[in-house]
Amino acid sequence: MNDTIYIISGTNRPQAVSLQIANVYLQEFNALNVKAEIIDLQELPADYLFSGLYENAGKSEITMNFRKKMKEGKKFVFVIAEYNGSFPGVLKAFIDGLEFPDSFTNKKCALVGLSAGEQGAVLAMSHLTDILNYCGAHVLAQKPKLAMVSQNMEDGKITNERYMKHIKLQVQQLLDF
Amino acid sequence: MNDTIYIISGTNRPQAVSLQIANVYLQEFNALNVKAEIIDLQELPADYLFSGLYENAGKSEITMNFRKKMKEGKKFVFVIAEYNGSFPGVLKAFIDGLEFPDSFTNKKCALVGLSAGEQGAVLAMSHLTDILNYCGAHVLAQKPKLAMVSQNMEDGKITNERYMKHIKLQVQQLLDF
Amino acid sequence: MNDTIYIISGTNRPQAVSLQIANVYLQEFNALNVKAEIIDLQELPADYLFSGLYENAGKSEITMNFRKKMKEGKKFVFVIAEYNGSFPGVLKAFIDGLEFPDSFTNKKCALVGLSAGEQGAVLAMSHLTDILNYCGAHVLAQKPKLAMVSQNMEDGKITNERYMKHIKLQVQQLLDF
Amino acid sequence: MNDTIYIISGTNRPQAVSLQIANVYLQEFNALNVKAEIIDLQELPADYLFSGLYENAGKSEITMNFRKKMKEGKKFVFVIAEYNGSFPGVLKAFIDGLEFPDSFTNKKCALVGLSAGEQGAVLAMSHLTDILNYCGAHVLAQKPKLAMVSQNMEDGKITNERYMKHIKLQVQQLLDF
Repeated sequence: MNDTIYIISGTNRPQAVSLQIANVYLQEFNALNVKAEIIDLQELPADYLFSGLYENAGKSEITMNFRKKMKEGKKFVFVIAEYNGSFPGVLKAFIDGLEFPDSFTNKKCALVGLSAGEQGAVLAMSHLTDILNYCGAHVLAQKPKLAMVSQNMEDGKITNERYMKHIKLQVQQLLDF
Repeated sequence: MNDTIYIISGTNRPQAVSLQIANVYLQEFNALNVKAEIIDLQELPADYLFSGLYENAGKSEITMNFRKKMKEGKKFVFVIAEYNGSFPGVLKAFIDGLEFPDSFTNKKCALVGLSAGEQGAVLAMSHLTDILNYCGAHVLAQKPKLAMVSQNMEDGKITNERYMKHIKLQVQQLLDF
Repeated sequence: MNDTIYIISGTNRPQAVSLQIANVYLQEFNALNVKAEIIDLQELPADYLFSGLYENAGKSEITMNFRKKMKEGKKFVFVIAEYNGSFPGVLKAFIDGLEFPDSFTNKKCALVGLSAGEQGAVLAMSHLTDILNYCGAHVLAQKPKLAMVSQNMEDGKITNERYMKHIKLQVQQLLDF
Repeated sequence: MNDTIYIISGTNRPQAVSLQIANVYLQEFNALNVKAEIIDLQELPADYLFSGLYENAGKSEITMNFRKKMKEGKKFVFVIAEYNGSFPGVLKAFIDGLEFPDSFTNKKCALVGLSAGEQGAVLAMSHLTDILNYCGAHVLAQKPKLAMVSQNMEDGKITNERYMKHIKLQVQQLLDF
């Protein structure tokens, strides 16, 4: 086990806003002298759906590396973009390829939702909470909803003060959780 | 648009029970002289997560073929195995690669859940209902829960009479829906 | 069974916005010459939680009357205000006091969500969909979300054109459902 | 604030199994010398739906007393019976009458589900998790599902060893949470 906080950028879409938000969290942790690292699902092997699951789980190098981090980490941030009323399929596929129950039992998770529209991924975060709880991980109650996220960012920074206030508060709460 | 009922076997796990259940539904529709066909996610391209989504959506042949069926079909059965408290990530990734809104708007869906344990994928079906409703598709209220599915099958047939009764009822309800 | 569409104003809060929205639906149905009627939970007996449930279910006159309508109706509209991340407890208590399974099996329901904040009761509608599906009722996929509802109304009329467009569309879809 | 753990028996049904389960938890806490106390919704005023909500919230003596405990307590156990695919309406009505945000912000909750059938209130616990998270309270990942609860009890004691193991584990986890 290690004390690095892993921030999962929960999509493999190229140039994803999720990765930008993951970087916002990374900087917040760094500013507090907390070790943190991004797990970017864009780096999954192209054939992960077949090479990374079931009897092949953990056999490729990149997958082994991600699995090791998820097993050793104790606290996670999940950055969740809203796709079709929930989170991206790739994020669940990523979870489906991890080790159980060691990846999640009694670990602590923080969720942040982003959307192009007005919902801020609220259903996506409800679904992921069900999944993480099922897997044994506790989820922080506070789950910022970054609706219309692109209009509230510039050059990779969040320009909406309310959003930043919620993120800073959540970062502190995850450290105390 | 066409009248074939598409039955989505919602996992790419080799030798999946989902595919056996999809075949049970196929036979039920056939026995009623209703055209039906299975879409088996095991047949997705290995690199679907990258080749089948975002700017690449629908470019490979197999993906084009699946997308065409989902666009033309009017009624679907989703066979859903419980993975980590929800449905398999590959199923959501499949949905994420379809055309919107034409694949789902005002279409009719039936869901069936299977699990090794006692839940019968009840949360998985709740999550998928949220997603399908979001995409504009109506979901049949009746959603059979095939808990401890392996103990209730033999040679690809369902041996539990209550389960078969629920499936036959649901098949009829989907035709009337 | 009868063809009146029952519109449930899902709160007992005095001067509720839900009741105003229920009236908007009533007028839409009337304009189409469709019989419709409001069931206003504000009219429940004060001691409904004890006089209307369990062994007392359906014994008081007002409760009998509501139960009869829910049993005879075939299509319902549920107007749902967001209270504490879901719908009001009184609405679930109302449902808990109805006859099963005759009140819901194979009936058709339309849901509309309202909120003071930005969510438009999206989780509330997801929860109620689970409940209605469990009880055997089909839920229309389209579920308008009337966020910041008070700012979008005046004198009991909805001033937001997009909201009215969604409501008119849903009314037509419920008739066709 | 005080250190008593409040156990909410989440129904007002006379002779409820929920109250028996609440007593099982009470004994577990007592055996560990932890102060705990039951809040039994059967004791709500008969007219709570009208006397305990909105502008009347907290005006009657019994309601004031319950509200004070929920405001002062830091950890809660919610005993949840499955009614119509979710939890009893009276439980949500109880929550709707509490003080916000002081009753829940950053508090810790444990949920246990009971059902006559095979589901163990899994959807009910998902819905309540959404609500408690929305209100700012953290929910323990482990949520025992006591399916077919009556067959697994005798004289107010749980006879199913697996159920008791899960309860004892959860009690310890809530103390450590």
